[in-house]
Amino acid sequence: MKLGDGVETAIHCVAVLAGLTDGAVMPTAALAEHYDVSPSYLAKHLKALVAGNVLISVPGPTGGYQLAKGPAEISLLDVVLAIEGRDPAFRCKDIRRNGPCVPDDSAFPKPCGIKKAMLKAEQTYRAELAAVSIQDLVTDFQETSDTRVIARGENFIAENERPKKL
Amino acid sequence: MKLGDGVETAIHCVAVLAGLTDGAVMPTAALAEHYDVSPSYLAKHLKALVAGNVLISVPGPTGGYQLAKGPAEISLLDVVLAIEGRDPAFRCKDIRRNGPCVPDDSAFPKPCGIKKAMLKAEQTYRAELAAVSIQDLVTDFQETSDTRVIARGENFIAENERPKKL
Repeated sequence: MKLGDGVETAIHCVAVLAGLTDGAVMPTAALAEHYDVSPSYLAKHLKALVAGNVLISVPGPTGGYQLAKGPAEISLLDVVLAIEGRDPAFRCKDIRRNGPCVPDDSAFPKPCGIKKAMLKAEQTYRAELAAVSIQDLVTDFQETSDTRVIARGENFIAENERPKKL
Repeated sequence: MKLGDGVETAIHCVAVLAGLTDGAVMPTAALAEHYDVSPSYLAKHLKALVAGNVLISVPGPTGGYQLAKGPAEISLLDVVLAIEGRDPAFRCKDIRRNGPCVPDDSAFPKPCGIKKAMLKAEQTYRAELAAVSIQDLVTDFQETSDTRVIARGENFIAENERPKKL
């Protein structure tokens, strides 16, 4: 089982954007420099977060990204599904119906027990991710991080956020 | 998040092998025909299941595969990890330390909270998979399937298993 490596970057970016002044936005280039990732790579994931209703994109030369809702309303699951897609990780091709001598559809009134068990496990994974909000992560970061790391984050935001247009 | 499509095939094969007569084996070609998958594709996954201590391979012209232990001792997690590898799905490159003006290692005494949260969710997923045994799946199959489907499985095994060598 693999998650794309964009997931880590996406979660960090969303957590940083939770620190913006009300109405402000952050440009892609600043986030890309802060995390030392390519701007085009990051842009792809930020667009996916907009499509997933996690971020809002403000266009134009003074534009950038901001959260689409409060950080307590955005879960880890929202971010993961925006980047990875909403399909289940388990891919079922219903191979129980493959091969010779398979009875007709009337012999398969119920879903495959293997699929059921695999999807049930995924539901617990998703429920766990849904129970953690971006605000939870930000609070944990602020309460447990070294003061130098916190100050770096605050400085990054102060130096790079673009205030709300009047 | 994606699981390789070999996972479905692997679980079905392990469940079928749970029905073999004691000591008997099943050749790859028969399983491949039963599920209409390519023998080379299947062979790769069966070897991974051997490496993961789920199956035993009996070599030779009358050889094949059998379970490495009882079906109650093999979990869905054992099969998934054998096919997908044991690494976490979440890939952490510790990007919190990327970019300019990062403090030295002494500022990061604790693991990243994002990584912790992602791995905690994975633990619940793995625990759920670990709680389901191949025997559970076989019992559910026998109790809930159409009699034609059960008979097809039993016929497949009877016609294709190779008895224990004396």
